[in-house]
Amino acid sequence: MLMYNLILKKRDGGELTKEEIDFFIDGVTAGAIPDYQIAAFLMAVYLMGMNSRETTDLTLAMAGSGDMADLSSIPGVKLDKHSTGGVGDKTTLMATPIVAAAGIPIAKMTGKGMGHACGTVDKLDAIPGMRTSLDKDEFVRIVKDIGISIIGQTDNFVPADKYIYALRDVTATVSSIPLIASSVMSKKIASGADRIFLDVKTGGGAYIKEYTDSLELAKIMVDIGRLANRKTAAIISNMDVPLGTHVGNALETIEAISVLKNEAGKDLTDFALFVASRMMNLAGLGDMAACEGIAEEKLRSGEALSKLRRLITAQGGDSAVIDDYSLMPKANTVAEIKAERTGYIRHMDTLRVGMAGFTLGTGRESKDAPIDYSAGIILRKKPGDYAAKGDILAEFYTNKDDEALSAAREEFIGAVEIGDEPPPEQKLVYAYVDETGITEY
Amino acid sequence: MLMYNLILKKRDGGELTKEEIDFFIDGVTAGAIPDYQIAAFLMAVYLMGMNSRETTDLTLAMAGSGDMADLSSIPGVKLDKHSTGGVGDKTTLMATPIVAAAGIPIAKMTGKGMGHACGTVDKLDAIPGMRTSLDKDEFVRIVKDIGISIIGQTDNFVPADKYIYALRDVTATVSSIPLIASSVMSKKIASGADRIFLDVKTGGGAYIKEYTDSLELAKIMVDIGRLANRKTAAIISNMDVPLGTHVGNALETIEAISVLKNEAGKDLTDFALFVASRMMNLAGLGDMAACEGIAEEKLRSGEALSKLRRLITAQGGDSAVIDDYSLMPKANTVAEIKAERTGYIRHMDTLRVGMAGFTLGTGRESKDAPIDYSAGIILRKKPGDYAAKGDILAEFYTNKDDEALSAAREEFIGAVEIGDEPPPEQKLVYAYVDETGITEY
Repeated sequence: MLMYNLILKKRDGGELTKEEIDFFIDGVTAGAIPDYQIAAFLMAVYLMGMNSRETTDLTLAMAGSGDMADLSSIPGVKLDKHSTGGVGDKTTLMATPIVAAAGIPIAKMTGKGMGHACGTVDKLDAIPGMRTSLDKDEFVRIVKDIGISIIGQTDNFVPADKYIYALRDVTATVSSIPLIASSVMSKKIASGADRIFLDVKTGGGAYIKEYTDSLELAKIMVDIGRLANRKTAAIISNMDVPLGTHVGNALETIEAISVLKNEAGKDLTDFALFVASRMMNLAGLGDMAACEGIAEEKLRSGEALSKLRRLITAQGGDSAVIDDYSLMPKANTVAEIKAERTGYIRHMDTLRVGMAGFTLGTGRESKDAPIDYSAGIILRKKPGDYAAKGDILAEFYTNKDDEALSAAREEFIGAVEIGDEPPPEQKLVYAYVDETGITEY
Repeated sequence: MLMYNLILKKRDGGELTKEEIDFFIDGVTAGAIPDYQIAAFLMAVYLMGMNSRETTDLTLAMAGSGDMADLSSIPGVKLDKHSTGGVGDKTTLMATPIVAAAGIPIAKMTGKGMGHACGTVDKLDAIPGMRTSLDKDEFVRIVKDIGISIIGQTDNFVPADKYIYALRDVTATVSSIPLIASSVMSKKIASGADRIFLDVKTGGGAYIKEYTDSLELAKIMVDIGRLANRKTAAIISNMDVPLGTHVGNALETIEAISVLKNEAGKDLTDFALFVASRMMNLAGLGDMAACEGIAEEKLRSGEALSKLRRLITAQGGDSAVIDDYSLMPKANTVAEIKAERTGYIRHMDTLRVGMAGFTLGTGRESKDAPIDYSAGIILRKKPGDYAAKGDILAEFYTNKDDEALSAAREEFIGAVEIGDEPPPEQKLVYAYVDETGITEY
């Protein structure tokens, strides 16, 4: 078999066989296919697409390219959760403790942040002492002991995806639905959970901007889950506004804690409950109404917060941060960003808010660069709020110099649209997709 | 400017500016763009296309990436000719001496063979003593002295094309019309001639199989010539049958000589006259009918043969080969391929005939591999001929072992279709394209 012929076939819109896809992934994993052939192939896939069967075969081939977690020693239906990434997205930290408090084991391997979106593992690492590089035995033991563990991916975790993603990133082939679907689902399948809950972000601050594309992605991933015998459900949620008010690793962790302490805004709390109840339903805990009741109860009773406290302690972190946020990393500089005119916040360009955060230091400038956990933004006004000229729109937290601060300020001011009329209300969630079909809200 | 953004723009079907195209070619030439980005870009161009303006800018940027020949010291309108390549295509060796005999200076830089097609420079190199790597001064002096010189391309000749072509070859992006057009025309423009005559081969043995694609390629190249102020004309000729009867470097040179000696088949001679007369017309020698008369006269009188003899001598070759073909390189093994049934030769899969030749040794197995000038095929029957079972269809010439010989025999037998009815007659030339429009035959 020749890689050349696979490129040719896909270029001409052909359907690749399982053997051809296995050949490709084996070659990528072994380093036997030159980058330029992989790159040409990825562009051909981007432009000509892949059907659901090809995408599933690609996913399974990638999942098998490195370590596969075996969670069979943990009793019960193991649940994993994934978000396609957005600005201020701390959903995992809010929802998984609620679900774990209801007795569903959470054994989650998660990635680092990419570009303008912060990753769950980085948010946990912002807690002093927290260890997210555990070996498999410790990981499984913690899940057995306390019902939840969240760790980073091992070095040999889906190496084919790592290699392909790095090339997609520099060849403008990231936003391809089959390539995104196979990247996400290969990691979920290699993570070993029985059921997979997906949060597909859509809108300006997400990697996919259009609702119809996000829905297609969700449907394909649910389909892959079915074909791979891992029951999967997905929500399509709104990333045209930042999620909550805190953006940045330590700040997002703090906001997630505040949700579990029943001290956060209604929107964010409602979203946490929505996700947690659907995760419980996917895990088979009961019908949707019953699960909503359980989620509400586990949150209100403080059991979810206890679960997070135990998780932090079990992985070496200082759980005192829950009661004293000043123990979290702190930025040297805090700057207030004020409204330049009076009116309603009509829109926030969420990608630009994320980029402003990135300029303040929330992300990595290269793959292995260190990250400033303390950097970020707290939004004091969100779309729909009214601001008088001079009111504080946001607080910036950074350890960067004045130049970076003023670049971030300019980005942020450009991202906020203020007008005389309040904007139309926005939905937080657009749709729910599982094997039985699509529910739109 | 970032290469990433150029890939993104072309991926989404955008039109690249001249500045963007210059940035790309400068980056390729300087080695500043990684191969994987070039490869992804080439696939995006393959699938999304380029308009005539982009293709012209690409051509001119490539033409300027290395040495540009200056032929201004040669008096008269300098003419160049190019074939897109096919099986048995010795047209340059037949036609240019006829044109030169009519007083049109021929200063031609030409490439090596690629894959199943033999290159003009290799055919000349098959003549003992022949030198095709001349410096510029000697090249110009010979053209001034005798009116014709044909040499290989210098090492720094259109380096951007060399680099891009090598990547196209391994990423299934060769057969893209804008990429072919820019590759061909950049080399013609860098070669310095005032007018350019193109022979676009179409059909099974050509790089482009479909007539409509070939016509589009011809039109774009004529358009590029116009925009680059190099008057250009093109023919679309038939490569569904091998041209003439001889395939392989020394054998094709011998057959070209036989045309100039008025000893070859009518079809091939007619084709030589057709090409030569249109080249003369393009050079401004007169209207088509007048040029046809001149071409006929220069061939019949032996003046064209004298021109070839002088060319060979001027470049160090032994012109005695013209009178004694046994002075040309000779293969150790000659094998006869016989008809396995009686009937009309209905079709010859020309690509497979070329591949059979390649197996016998006519081509290079890698870029700088040596070539066996003596290897090749003489067809004793061509489509339309009648063969009794056991009649000789072809003679094979090779220095390879029995295994290669039997592989070539199998390829050849598979390429020949014999049936009870004679096949419909085929045209040698389908169309002529110049700035004034298209003439179809």
